[in-house]
Amino acid sequence: MKMRRSSRIVAITKFLSDKPYKLISLNQFTERFDAAKSTISEDLAIIKDVFEQEKMGKIETVSGAAGGVRFIPYKGNKDIRETIINLCNQLSDPDRILAGGYVYMTDLIFDPKLMSEIGEIFATKFADLDAEYIITMETKGIPIALMTARALNLPLVSIRKDSKVTEGSVVSINYITGSSKKIETMSLSRRALPEESKVIIIDDFMKAGGTAKGMLDLMGEFKAEVLDIGVLIKTANPTQKLVDDYTSLAVLEKINEEEEEIIVDPSDWVINL
Amino acid sequence: MKMRRSSRIVAITKFLSDKPYKLISLNQFTERFDAAKSTISEDLAIIKDVFEQEKMGKIETVSGAAGGVRFIPYKGNKDIRETIINLCNQLSDPDRILAGGYVYMTDLIFDPKLMSEIGEIFATKFADLDAEYIITMETKGIPIALMTARALNLPLVSIRKDSKVTEGSVVSINYITGSSKKIETMSLSRRALPEESKVIIIDDFMKAGGTAKGMLDLMGEFKAEVLDIGVLIKTANPTQKLVDDYTSLAVLEKINEEEEEIIVDPSDWVINL
Repeated sequence: MKMRRSSRIVAITKFLSDKPYKLISLNQFTERFDAAKSTISEDLAIIKDVFEQEKMGKIETVSGAAGGVRFIPYKGNKDIRETIINLCNQLSDPDRILAGGYVYMTDLIFDPKLMSEIGEIFATKFADLDAEYIITMETKGIPIALMTARALNLPLVSIRKDSKVTEGSVVSINYITGSSKKIETMSLSRRALPEESKVIIIDDFMKAGGTAKGMLDLMGEFKAEVLDIGVLIKTANPTQKLVDDYTSLAVLEKINEEEEEIIVDPSDWVINL
Repeated sequence: MKMRRSSRIVAITKFLSDKPYKLISLNQFTERFDAAKSTISEDLAIIKDVFEQEKMGKIETVSGAAGGVRFIPYKGNKDIRETIINLCNQLSDPDRILAGGYVYMTDLIFDPKLMSEIGEIFATKFADLDAEYIITMETKGIPIALMTARALNLPLVSIRKDSKVTEGSVVSINYITGSSKKIETMSLSRRALPEESKVIIIDDFMKAGGTAKGMLDLMGEFKAEVLDIGVLIKTANPTQKLVDDYTSLAVLEKINEEEEEIIVDPSDWVINL
């Protein structure tokens, strides 16, 4: 269908931004809008400029016969800091302190808008790793990991805390939770992840790192290469975690149940952006 | 910042479509782009026309002092049918049959792109109900429910299969799974859902409806009004479920382990669109 430039630009903008990382050939646009390749290229140049200027992500052009254009979600440093500072402020509300010195954060973990922003932050951080799968562990890791997978256009694989009959043959390992020293089981269906995949692990919370260590071990069973680990919040203590390489976005510095005080700060990675 | 129309239109399109159901005042655009209200209104009229014509969703204008404009994700009937038929074809692959007559569908349930489309389908179906929360039950319900919540700009509340210490005081109920007649527990934190909320339940699978019935009962404990139930796939048998009112998108008609046959069809609701 023939369209004016302004109309065509609306449609192309929406189309690209709905499909992060998906390579779209220029032909698809020339056919759909009955326009010359040069015209579409001009449209794309305008969209690219605005996305850069307004920090709305990147439009990347891949040349050659198998080439095309794609949208890459990308958060600017200022946006990342704002999102995380805002999250830390919300988490530092003393009303969130639960008996036993825990923090209530389920509402935030399941907030689709916030998780979609966090997903784009991890996608920005891990953009160049060429991962093939995002790995998480049920339950609270799922929303962040799903939104990260969406932003990177990757499939999500969710490790289970038990082995279910509806998943076929599974690989299970035992692991010791770093903080409470309990033995737990995690398992993953054989068909969920091809061997030798390149993966990124995403989770919501890291205390001693026992769960993350367990996920690394389980990935070893699948001969997977773990490119990086991203966690939303880590605790300041213990300072030494059971895994070495990971990126956290926020740090739970302190919970004092009696004084009704809770302190959550942006992580060094966020501060140094 | 002063911009040309085509550039402004890129930015407004991206801005609106990133924030489904969020009402944006025209002032926000006039200030950001240093443009007159009439100019922004013309931009919006172009965007609105293209969205309608290309079935990319609706742009809704709310007049008055507290007014503004918002993007409403909306899938056309043809798109809905295509998505569901494609899903049914994938599910009908005999390789998905697991020992015991189960179907492997975890990969699809955790596919961010597919779930984001399914979320928009449920958002289209439930657009006029004025719900306040989306409710689901861990684990496999979460991706669909999160994407539905995202498309409707609502918070997601996830019921747990046990009660966790990190959620504060919880309400638990026992329920009987309709098919295997086992007694299970589900629970929800008191602070996760205010009393007398208007909610929509979203889940991945319904066999006898025992879990859905349990969720209805649990919602009763919170004095919540359940406006509707959406499930991705129901089984054809038993025909009589433990809940009466629900919408499913696909029907698992038959699994024959020996003949390696599995049949999944679009639901009546999809066929009659």
